[in-house]
Amino acid sequence: MRVAGITQAQCGDVTFVANPRYLPQLATTRASAVIVGAINGVEPRPACALLRSEDPYSAFARAVALFAPGSAAPARGVDPLASIARDVSIGADVSIGPFVAIGAGASIGARTVVYPNAVIGAGARIGDDCAIHSHVSIRERVVVGSRVILHDGVVVGGDGFGFARQPDGTHLKIPQHADVVIEDDVEIGANATIDRPAVGETRIGAGTKIDNLVHIAHGVAVGRRVLLAAQVGIAGSTTIEDDVMMAGQTGVTGHVRVGRGASVGAKSAVLQSVEPGAFVTGHPAIPHGAWRRASMLFRRLPMFRKRVEALEQRVAQLEEKLAAWQARRTDR
Amino acid sequence: MRVAGITQAQCGDVTFVANPRYLPQLATTRASAVIVGAINGVEPRPACALLRSEDPYSAFARAVALFAPGSAAPARGVDPLASIARDVSIGADVSIGPFVAIGAGASIGARTVVYPNAVIGAGARIGDDCAIHSHVSIRERVVVGSRVILHDGVVVGGDGFGFARQPDGTHLKIPQHADVVIEDDVEIGANATIDRPAVGETRIGAGTKIDNLVHIAHGVAVGRRVLLAAQVGIAGSTTIEDDVMMAGQTGVTGHVRVGRGASVGAKSAVLQSVEPGAFVTGHPAIPHGAWRRASMLFRRLPMFRKRVEALEQRVAQLEEKLAAWQARRTDR
Amino acid sequence: MRVAGITQAQCGDVTFVANPRYLPQLATTRASAVIVGAINGVEPRPACALLRSEDPYSAFARAVALFAPGSAAPARGVDPLASIARDVSIGADVSIGPFVAIGAGASIGARTVVYPNAVIGAGARIGDDCAIHSHVSIRERVVVGSRVILHDGVVVGGDGFGFARQPDGTHLKIPQHADVVIEDDVEIGANATIDRPAVGETRIGAGTKIDNLVHIAHGVAVGRRVLLAAQVGIAGSTTIEDDVMMAGQTGVTGHVRVGRGASVGAKSAVLQSVEPGAFVTGHPAIPHGAWRRASMLFRRLPMFRKRVEALEQRVAQLEEKLAAWQARRTDR
Repeated sequence: MRVAGITQAQCGDVTFVANPRYLPQLATTRASAVIVGAINGVEPRPACALLRSEDPYSAFARAVALFAPGSAAPARGVDPLASIARDVSIGADVSIGPFVAIGAGASIGARTVVYPNAVIGAGARIGDDCAIHSHVSIRERVVVGSRVILHDGVVVGGDGFGFARQPDGTHLKIPQHADVVIEDDVEIGANATIDRPAVGETRIGAGTKIDNLVHIAHGVAVGRRVLLAAQVGIAGSTTIEDDVMMAGQTGVTGHVRVGRGASVGAKSAVLQSVEPGAFVTGHPAIPHGAWRRASMLFRRLPMFRKRVEALEQRVAQLEEKLAAWQARRTDR
Repeated sequence: MRVAGITQAQCGDVTFVANPRYLPQLATTRASAVIVGAINGVEPRPACALLRSEDPYSAFARAVALFAPGSAAPARGVDPLASIARDVSIGADVSIGPFVAIGAGASIGARTVVYPNAVIGAGARIGDDCAIHSHVSIRERVVVGSRVILHDGVVVGGDGFGFARQPDGTHLKIPQHADVVIEDDVEIGANATIDRPAVGETRIGAGTKIDNLVHIAHGVAVGRRVLLAAQVGIAGSTTIEDDVMMAGQTGVTGHVRVGRGASVGAKSAVLQSVEPGAFVTGHPAIPHGAWRRASMLFRRLPMFRKRVEALEQRVAQLEEKLAAWQARRTDR
Repeated sequence: MRVAGITQAQCGDVTFVANPRYLPQLATTRASAVIVGAINGVEPRPACALLRSEDPYSAFARAVALFAPGSAAPARGVDPLASIARDVSIGADVSIGPFVAIGAGASIGARTVVYPNAVIGAGARIGDDCAIHSHVSIRERVVVGSRVILHDGVVVGGDGFGFARQPDGTHLKIPQHADVVIEDDVEIGANATIDRPAVGETRIGAGTKIDNLVHIAHGVAVGRRVLLAAQVGIAGSTTIEDDVMMAGQTGVTGHVRVGRGASVGAKSAVLQSVEPGAFVTGHPAIPHGAWRRASMLFRRLPMFRKRVEALEQRVAQLEEKLAAWQARRTDR
C-alpha cells in the first residue's frame, strides 16, 4: 500500500485529485481510495472509496508523509571522516556525514543532518532540525535558521557580483563581506545560489520556498512565504515582499520592489517595481491581462499589416475619386 | 598529429567542415587533411587531402575519439579515502575515487567510474560503464542505467517543488519520495538538476542528452533520444516525447505534452501542448514561421502607428470634405 | 566601525552614495561619514562628514576592503585529509583544505587557496594567488591563470554538448578533449559552467567577470574585461569580444560574434552578430531604442486593433456614400 498518482495507482493504493483537469480519470483509476475535494458530478469507479477533504492537496501531503520510506540520513553522530575545526559547537543528536568540513567557530543546532561532502564555513551558525544536503556550501558567517532544508549543491554566501569600473576599463572588485541570513522554515532547491553583499545583508524570510537553480543576488531582501520557481533570478538590492509568487525563469532587475502578494508569470522580465497584489507577465512585465491580449495580437501582426495596407489603398482610391470630382466641379 | 579546428589546424593535423558556413576556409587552412561532405565548388588548398564522407560530422566524431588523450579516470579499485556503507554491491573493474560516499544498499555496475567527491545515496542503483563525475549527487533509491554520463555537479533526485498552501498562508511541504529513473546512454551536463516526485516517477529516456544547468521538475517524463540544450527548464508532470529537440533557455509549463519529434526554438516559453513534429518558438511559443514573421513586424510597430495615424487624418479629411459637399448639395 | 549601507549605517559607520537615486537619504542617514561624488544640492545631515571622491564607487570598494573581516581561508599548508596524486607541483604558501582531490601531474601556484572539497583534475595548471572555493571542479588539463577566483560549485572543463545524429536517430558523442583556458584576474560566480570543446579551445580573457549560474559552451571565446551577469548563456563557438557587457538571463546563439564594447539588455536572445559598441535588447535582440519603442506599443496592440477596425468601418462608409452618389450621378 502506498500513495500513487491516479493513473499509476494499483489496487490497495491511495490516490488523489487536486487539479480538476484530472477529475475524469476518477472513472478509470484502479486505486482503492481517492482523496478528493468537490468532484462536480464525475462518478468514481464503483469500488473506489472517496476520502473527501475541503483541501485535498494538503490531505494528500499528509498521506504521502504517512507512507514515506525510511530516512536516508546518515547515522546519528559525527562520521569519523568528517573534518571539524576548533571551537565548533555541535547540538544534540546531529548527524554529520563523511567528508563534511566545518570551519572554526561554526555552530550546528540539535537534530540537524549534514549530508556527506557538505561544507560549512568558519563562524556560520545553523539552527535546529535542518537538512543540509550533499555538496552544499554555506560560506563563512552565514546565519541559517531552524527547520531549513538546503538541497544538494546550494551555495549560500558566495560573493555578490560587484565591481567598480576603472579608468583603464578594468573592474575593481568590491569586497563582499556583509551578512547573509536564511530564516526559519526556508527550503532552497538544488544548485540555487544566494549571494553575499558588500554592505547590509541578503535575507530570505521565514517560510519562503525557492526552487532549483534560482539566483538571488547580493543585498536582495526576500520576504516571508515567498515562492520562487526554478531558474528565477533576482538582481541586486531588490526587495521581494511577503507572499509573492514567481513562476519559472522570471527575472527581476536590481533596486526595485515587488509588492506584497504580487504574482509574476513565467519567463517574465520585471524591469520596474510591482504594486502589491498585482499579477504581471512579459518582457517587460505588464499587467497579465494586457500581456495576454497583446500576445494574442502579436502573432496576427502580419494580418494587421495587410489590413493597414488595404486601408491605405482604399483611402488613396477615395482621395483620387474625390480629387477627380473636385476637378470636374471646378471645370463646370 | 591531432584533430583540430579549421583555423587552428597546423601541418600534420586533420580538420573537418560540417557546417557549410566554414567551407570558404578550406582554401586557407594549414591542415594536412580535411573531412568533408559535399563541398559545392570551393577549392581546397592544393596540399590538403580531402577525406570525403557522406556524414562528415560523424566521421569527425570518430576521428576525435581516435586521437583522444588518455583517460583522466581514477585508478581501478576503490580509493582508501572513499566511504562505502554496509551492503554496497560493487561490480568488477570499477574506479571509485577519494572522498566518494556511497550509502547503504547502493549498487555500482561493472567498469563504472565514480570521480572524487561524488555522493551516491542509500539504495541507489547504477549500471555498467557509467561515468559519475565529481560533486554529482545521486540521491537515495535513484536508478541509473548503463553507459550513463553525469557531469560534475549534477543532482538527481532532489525534492520536487511541491507545497500545499495553508489557510494561514504558509506552505505545507508535500514529501517527495517517489521514483527517479535515468535510462541507458543518457548524458547530463554540469550542474543540471533532475527532481524527485511525490508520487509516480521522473524518468529520462534512453539515449537522451541534456546540457548544463537544465532543470527537470518532479514527475516529468522525458522520452528517448531527446536533446535539451543548456538552461532549459521543464515544469512538473509534463511529458516530452521521443526525439524532441529544445534550444537553450527554453521553458515548458507543467502538465502539458510536447509531441514526438517536435522542436522548440531558443528562449521560448511553451505554455500549452505541442503537436508531434511541430516547430514552435516565442513567448508564448507559436509556430516558428509565424513567430519569425511577427518578430520582424514587432520592431516596425512605431512605423505602423505612424501609418495608422496618417490614415486617421486622411479619413477625417475625406469625411470632412464629403460632409461639406453634402451640406452644399442640401443647400442647393 | 564598519562600512554600511546608507539606511543601515549607525553612528561611527562610513557609508556611500554612488547611485543618485539614493542621494535623498543623505539627509537622514545616521552614518558618521559618507563617501560621495557630485551631490547636486542635497544637504547631508549636519553631523555627517562628506568624503568627496570623483569615483565614489571605487573609493567605497577600497573602504570595504580596509574594514573587511579576517580571512576564512584554510590554514597554510596541505590538510592531512587532502588527496594529492603523484607528480603534483605545489607552490609556496598554498592553503589546501580537507577533502580536496588533486589529480596526477597537476600544478598549483604560490599562495593559491583551495577550499575544502574542491577537485582539480589530472594535469590541470593553476596560477598564483587564486581562490578555488569548495565544490569547484577543475577538470583534467584545464589551465587557470593567476589571481583567479572560482566560487563554490563552478565547473570548468566539463564536456561540451556535441553529438552527431545517426541514421537511426541516436546521438553519437563527439569526444570533447581540447583545451580550456581561464586567463588572469578572472572571477566566476557560484555554479557557473565553462565547457570543453572537441577541437580548438574555450577561453575566458583576462579580467573578465562572470556571475552565478552562467553557461559558457564549448569553443566560446570570451574577451578581456567582459561582464556577464547571472544566468547568461553563450552557445558554442561564439566570440564575445573585449569589454562587452551582458545583463542577466541573456542568451547568445552559436557561431556569432558580439563586437567589442557592445552591451546586451536583460533577458535578450542574441540571434545574430552584434556590431562593436552597439546596445541591443529583446528576443530577437534589436537596437535597444527600437526595442523600447516597440515594447511600449506592444501593450497597446488591442487599442491599435480597435483603431484599425474603426478605420475600416469609416472607409467602408465613405465608399458606400461615394458609390451612392456615383449611382445618382449616373442616374441623372
